[in-house]
Amino acid sequence: MRTLSVALGERTYAVHVGSGLIDRADLVLPVLERKKVGIVTNTTVAPLFLERVAMALATAGVEIVRVVLADGEEHKDWASLNAVFDALIEQRCGRDTTLVALGGGVIGDLAGFAAATYQRGVPYIQIPTTLLAQVDSSVGGKTAINHRLGKNMIGAFHQPRLVIADMDTLKTLPERELRAGLAEVIKHGLIRDAEFFAWLEGNLDRLLARDADALGHAVLRSIAIKAEVVSRDERERGERALLNFGHTFGHAIETGLGYGVWLHGEAVAAGMVMAADLSHRLGYLSQGDTGRIRAILQRAGLPTAAQGLTPERMQQLMSVDKKSKEGRVRFVVLERLGAALVRADVPAGIVSQTLSKPSP
Amino acid sequence: MRTLSVALGERTYAVHVGSGLIDRADLVLPVLERKKVGIVTNTTVAPLFLERVAMALATAGVEIVRVVLADGEEHKDWASLNAVFDALIEQRCGRDTTLVALGGGVIGDLAGFAAATYQRGVPYIQIPTTLLAQVDSSVGGKTAINHRLGKNMIGAFHQPRLVIADMDTLKTLPERELRAGLAEVIKHGLIRDAEFFAWLEGNLDRLLARDADALGHAVLRSIAIKAEVVSRDERERGERALLNFGHTFGHAIETGLGYGVWLHGEAVAAGMVMAADLSHRLGYLSQGDTGRIRAILQRAGLPTAAQGLTPERMQQLMSVDKKSKEGRVRFVVLERLGAALVRADVPAGIVSQTLSKPSP
Repeated sequence: MRTLSVALGERTYAVHVGSGLIDRADLVLPVLERKKVGIVTNTTVAPLFLERVAMALATAGVEIVRVVLADGEEHKDWASLNAVFDALIEQRCGRDTTLVALGGGVIGDLAGFAAATYQRGVPYIQIPTTLLAQVDSSVGGKTAINHRLGKNMIGAFHQPRLVIADMDTLKTLPERELRAGLAEVIKHGLIRDAEFFAWLEGNLDRLLARDADALGHAVLRSIAIKAEVVSRDERERGERALLNFGHTFGHAIETGLGYGVWLHGEAVAAGMVMAADLSHRLGYLSQGDTGRIRAILQRAGLPTAAQGLTPERMQQLMSVDKKSKEGRVRFVVLERLGAALVRADVPAGIVSQTLSKPSP
Repeated sequence: MRTLSVALGERTYAVHVGSGLIDRADLVLPVLERKKVGIVTNTTVAPLFLERVAMALATAGVEIVRVVLADGEEHKDWASLNAVFDALIEQRCGRDTTLVALGGGVIGDLAGFAAATYQRGVPYIQIPTTLLAQVDSSVGGKTAINHRLGKNMIGAFHQPRLVIADMDTLKTLPERELRAGLAEVIKHGLIRDAEFFAWLEGNLDRLLARDADALGHAVLRSIAIKAEVVSRDERERGERALLNFGHTFGHAIETGLGYGVWLHGEAVAAGMVMAADLSHRLGYLSQGDTGRIRAILQRAGLPTAAQGLTPERMQQLMSVDKKSKEGRVRFVVLERLGAALVRADVPAGIVSQTLSKPSP
C-alpha cells in the first residue's frame, strides 16, 4: 500500500492506493466520529463489493446503513439524492454518521454532495471502484448532482476524510469504463507532466491489458498530480481550473447528447482533442503534438470527435460553463505538452473553427 | 445607520441596521464581484420592496435577474430551490453573480442554500424584511431547505457577504409575524443577557406598538448577541448550539403540525416554555423564572403549548434532531436567566414529564 496526502490544513486527508484495501476496517476506523456509517453505492457495485466492505466494518463493531441507488449518470439527480436523505433520516443518522461513497464517479459526486448537505454537513469517505473515480473524482472534494440544463450545476466543495483506491476493484471493471478512466489519466500528463504523458504512450498496451504494476503507477502519478493542484487551490480560484482541460467541450457534449449516453471520460477525450486543436489555432501546440494527443486517445479506443452536435449547439451549451467569468467562457489550453493555462479571451471565431473542423 | 461586524476571518461581513437602507446601492456595490445579481423573493414581498431594490441597483448599472417564489414555509423545498436554479441558468448567471435574499427567514434560508450550491457556491447578500429574519436567520450563514421528515434537514453553512436590516420594512409586517419575531428576540435575552430580557419585559408594549427606537434597540442587541456566538463557533461544534434554545421542541412542533401551520417563532415560543419547564425539572431555573418566561410570551400573544401533538409523537419527532450525538437528543436548557447550556444526558422520563404537563 502506498499513501499520498492531500494537504489542506485541518482538512488534510490520506489517499491509500494498493490491493485488498476494501476489506481493511483498520484504515476506516480512525476517521470515524462514531461507529455508524451509511454506505452509498449502486446496483452494479453492490453485488461485487458492498458486503465485503460492510462485513469488514460490522466485524469491527460499526453500525451500517445501506443505500443502493440505480446505476448511471442519468441518475445523478435530485431523486437519487433524496433517496439517500430518506434512508439517513429513517435510520436516525445524526451529524456524527460518516457516509461512505462506494462506486464510480457518479456515486462519489452524489454521496459527497449528500454528505455536504445532510444536516448541513457530515463526514464522508471515498472508496472509488472505477479507474476514473480513483484518478480523478474521488480526490479534491468536488461534489455535485446534475441539472437538466447543465452537468454538475448543483454542488459543493466538501473534502472527504479519507480516500481508499483498491486496485483489485479494477479487475471487474468493464472494458469501456477502463478506457474512459484512461482519458483522465492522459489529461493529468497533458496538463502537468510531459514525461508521464510519454510514459503513457509507451505503456498504453500494458494499461489496457490491466497490468497491475502499470495501473498502479498510472493511478499513483495521477493522484499525486491532482493532490498537488488541489492543495494549492482548493476552491478553483485559479490553478485548479487547469484540471478541467477538455471539460468545457466535454461537458457540452455530455449535456447535448443526454446524460449517460457517453461516459464522462469519453466526452472528455473528444473534448481534449478539441481543446488541443484550439491550443494549436491559438499558436501554442504544434500540429505534431495535437497528433500525438489524438493518436493516444484513438489507441485507447476513445472518441475523438462529437457526433450529432452542431457547432451552434455546442457554443450554446458551452455558454453556461461554470468557469465563465463576466459572461465569457474561459478555455483551458495547452501551452505545450505538460503545461496548461486558462484563456478568457478566445475569439468566438476561433472556437467556431475548432468546432467546425471535420473529423479526420 | 449602525453597523455591526460578524468576525469570521476572511469571511467577516458587515450587518447594517437602520432606515431607508434598501434604496442604497452604495451599500451593495462594494461586495459585488460583477455587476450582476439575482434577487430571490416571494409573492408577498415582491410588490412591497422588489422594484425599490432592483431600481436602486439598476440605476447603479447592475444587471438584475428576478426570481419570485410562492410564499410560506411549506415552499421551502426542493421545487422552489430548483426554480431558482432554473432562472439562474437560463439567465446565464455565472459564479460571479451575487444572489440577494429579499424576504423573511424562508427566503433567506432558501436563497442562501441556492447560493451555497449553485455551481458549488456563489456569493449572496441578506436583506431580511421580517423581524425574525433580521434578528436571527439572516445572520450566521445557516442555510437550508426542509425535508418531509425533518425541518432544515438539507442545508449548508455559507456566510453572506453582507446583511442589510432596514427597519422601514417592519412597518408593513403583519402583526402575527412581528410577534413571532419577538420570540427569537426574547430567546437572545434568555440565553445570554438577563438585563436585555428585563428590558424586553419593560418595553414589550412599545415593541408591539412598533416604536422605532425600541425596535431598533431590540434588533441591534439581538444581532450583537448572535454575531458574538457565531464568531466563536461558526459551524455549531459547541456554543452555537445554545442559539437553539426552544428549537428542539419547536422543530418537532413545526414538523408535527405540518410546515406553515405555525410560524417558526410561534413554535419556538411554545418550545421555549417546554425547555424552561425542563430546565426547572433538572434543578436549574426557579418556578418564578419559568413563570416570567411564560408571562412575557403570553403578553406577546405567542403560544405557550403545542396543541394536537401527543407526548409520544413529540418524542418521536425530536429523535431526529440535528443536535443529537451518539443517538441521544441534546437539549439546550437555561442554567438561569441569561445563561444556557447543553445537556446530552437528560433522562427520557423527565422529558416525558415536561411533554405531559397540562397547559395552565
